[in-house]
Amino acid sequence: MNVAQLDANPPSGTRDMLPADAALREAAFATVRQVFRSHGFEALETPAFERLEVLTGKYGEEGDQLIFKILRRGEHEDTGQADLALRYDLTVPLARVAARYGSQLPTPFKRYQIAPVWRADRPGKGRYREFYQCDLDIVGSRSPVADGATLSALTDALVALGLDGFTIQLNHRRALSALVAAYGIPAHQESDALVALDKMAKIGLAGVAGELRQRSIADDAVDALIADLEAGKAEQHSSAHPVVERIAADEQGRQALAELDRIRQLLPDAVAARVVHAPLLARGLSYYTGAVFEVVHGDLDVTIAAGGRYDGLIGMFQSEEVPATGGSLGLERILLLLESVQQHVSQLDAVVTVVDDELAPRAVEIADQLRTAGLAVDLYAGVGRLGKQLKYADRRQAATAVIVGRDEVAAGTVTVKDLSSGQQHTVIAEQAADTIRRLVATTR
Amino acid sequence: MNVAQLDANPPSGTRDMLPADAALREAAFATVRQVFRSHGFEALETPAFERLEVLTGKYGEEGDQLIFKILRRGEHEDTGQADLALRYDLTVPLARVAARYGSQLPTPFKRYQIAPVWRADRPGKGRYREFYQCDLDIVGSRSPVADGATLSALTDALVALGLDGFTIQLNHRRALSALVAAYGIPAHQESDALVALDKMAKIGLAGVAGELRQRSIADDAVDALIADLEAGKAEQHSSAHPVVERIAADEQGRQALAELDRIRQLLPDAVAARVVHAPLLARGLSYYTGAVFEVVHGDLDVTIAAGGRYDGLIGMFQSEEVPATGGSLGLERILLLLESVQQHVSQLDAVVTVVDDELAPRAVEIADQLRTAGLAVDLYAGVGRLGKQLKYADRRQAATAVIVGRDEVAAGTVTVKDLSSGQQHTVIAEQAADTIRRLVATTR
Repeated sequence: MNVAQLDANPPSGTRDMLPADAALREAAFATVRQVFRSHGFEALETPAFERLEVLTGKYGEEGDQLIFKILRRGEHEDTGQADLALRYDLTVPLARVAARYGSQLPTPFKRYQIAPVWRADRPGKGRYREFYQCDLDIVGSRSPVADGATLSALTDALVALGLDGFTIQLNHRRALSALVAAYGIPAHQESDALVALDKMAKIGLAGVAGELRQRSIADDAVDALIADLEAGKAEQHSSAHPVVERIAADEQGRQALAELDRIRQLLPDAVAARVVHAPLLARGLSYYTGAVFEVVHGDLDVTIAAGGRYDGLIGMFQSEEVPATGGSLGLERILLLLESVQQHVSQLDAVVTVVDDELAPRAVEIADQLRTAGLAVDLYAGVGRLGKQLKYADRRQAATAVIVGRDEVAAGTVTVKDLSSGQQHTVIAEQAADTIRRLVATTR
Repeated sequence: MNVAQLDANPPSGTRDMLPADAALREAAFATVRQVFRSHGFEALETPAFERLEVLTGKYGEEGDQLIFKILRRGEHEDTGQADLALRYDLTVPLARVAARYGSQLPTPFKRYQIAPVWRADRPGKGRYREFYQCDLDIVGSRSPVADGATLSALTDALVALGLDGFTIQLNHRRALSALVAAYGIPAHQESDALVALDKMAKIGLAGVAGELRQRSIADDAVDALIADLEAGKAEQHSSAHPVVERIAADEQGRQALAELDRIRQLLPDAVAARVVHAPLLARGLSYYTGAVFEVVHGDLDVTIAAGGRYDGLIGMFQSEEVPATGGSLGLERILLLLESVQQHVSQLDAVVTVVDDELAPRAVEIADQLRTAGLAVDLYAGVGRLGKQLKYADRRQAATAVIVGRDEVAAGTVTVKDLSSGQQHTVIAEQAADTIRRLVATTR
């Protein structure tokens, strides 16, 4: 079975997560789950693949191209046809679940799902064909309490992950409609105008002006809008911003702004303190119907979470509309941030060495006792001299190595080597756990 | 987008895990990971799909038929060809990782992976096309310490999951070879004989005799073997068993038995106490080369873990052999056991009700305070009267409901309703967390 020639890399656009990365991911996921649960959200898991017809037509023409399709099997394989497809996001599966189990689920249904999705995108820097999504949604409620609850849980999760210095940019799709209308841009050009405005952070005022004109928005509308945006620079995020004043002059706009105020009132103070009104924020996805938000990490100017209300989508497999609001954490991006700020700390308290075949059962016993005392303990499972074993312990970033040699066994002791200082402490075996705990506490 | 006609079931052979199931799985996985880490094993994650040529030819002809293949994309879609395939197990990806990252990994490399695999099996009772595997392996060591370490970690994980009353049946592939040879069965019939012997628990002595004859094993060999097995019934798991005596009369057999003894010496006492020698245990998979084991749950006579040493497999993508030993937990089966013994206990301490729009911000504040005090707290996110909200709290299996009504807000109190007794306690808001904690402690 020698196939040494075979390419041992993971498939293009996918990654192997070696232990340091995998440990960081596991810890981050556990933190997020714990916070979501503490906010009353429940776990949902759906299959990695769906029937093809469940997914097709849900992500636009471009999205459809990116779906990984699974070949039919057995006698049907030769047809070259697909009947299943890998999950492209976690929203369509949620919609299917809502349709399938409606009355078995509580109303509102507060669920989270942390799971990989697959997209046949051209792989590139930081863009993968397999990546995790982390979605949090409340299905079945039109109340602004639900919008506040998702913002609140997402914020607490970010804080629990150790992130800070982020801002929640909040807007409302109907405020955007009012904005566009207020400058005399006709309804059929609304989405063109919003796409351009949404790029403000990226391309600046002049860039947006150019893009609006390029998209055939009337010159006088562009001029008025750009003038107000220019004038509003000093009034960022304030209701005195001339654009916001124009929105508020419209009945629909006023209602939308009032709903945003209401959501802010429904946030704990620490969350509300992070919220700013971002009157141009559109969020690319056309399915949002109410509040929309983006959580932006200040230092790096990257979006680490986003979401909003999307009352038209979850009912896609049902005969009636199902209100829904939610958001996702940009987990892959967040993990990159965490990697850059956190040194990988191994949780291994000790590696017990096995220096002598005859003494190996005693080493097993010591390792077992240390674990019973609550420590994370590796027992060297290979064959090699003490020096090699100590190198292994270093490599594993263990805090200590425990040496169970002939002298130690005769005396009922063990030697605990502090791997950061190199100091050795020979103690009676029963005290080894305490000694290790003390060394771990001082070195970490 | 009305597609109400669409089948909302998950694809054939797959399952949606609704919150009660998903919560049980998450908790079980977290327990297992924690135990594995405490034994010095590290997490590894690999992509859900591999390049097709990595998987084909690794699982026999029958296995190859069960691989889910992914259609090529874009301009190549019309060819009807596949270039990727869903992971069929966690061993081949481990072999690929060992080949790709060899020197970047510690030696020995102790890894676990808990992840779904996919097989296009005919779905049936308890048989799924998507299911989790939970593998634990030590790559790069021939030492029996490694065999002991996998048994020890798997056993501790089962105990941590709350399982007990299980036995570790241990055997050795070379002891089996010696057994077959001892009764004069020629080497080319060895695997035929082992397949028959492995069925003892299922079909009994007479069944095995029939199966041996049917597989053309010589009559005198069958007669001698069956006679010894019959005579050995009183000597189950003892070295005085006549079959074991025959194995021990052979040099190869003696060595294999000595290795099993050695592994037992390298187990903590509590693990060693569960081990019995099972001289007929073969484990179906032909790739085992040394110790093999099955962990059998006594009451139900089901295998909940299994594994062994397989020195020839992990090197499949390399030019040299890589020794390896490991095992897997039968997670899906274990989860069924846990479901049957454990009542689903919601971890939700309270649902805070929102009885009045005007008072909603105060309810948000109360919920936030309770969470800060460490409680898991849901805030009712829908619209409805108190009765409906209390029903929701019951449905969520929360321990308490917290009522924030007009009188309460005026008095700076909240009313905590114990949802198991129905009793209500009106307390000052600052004491709500203590009250809930007390009620949770008495009702769970």
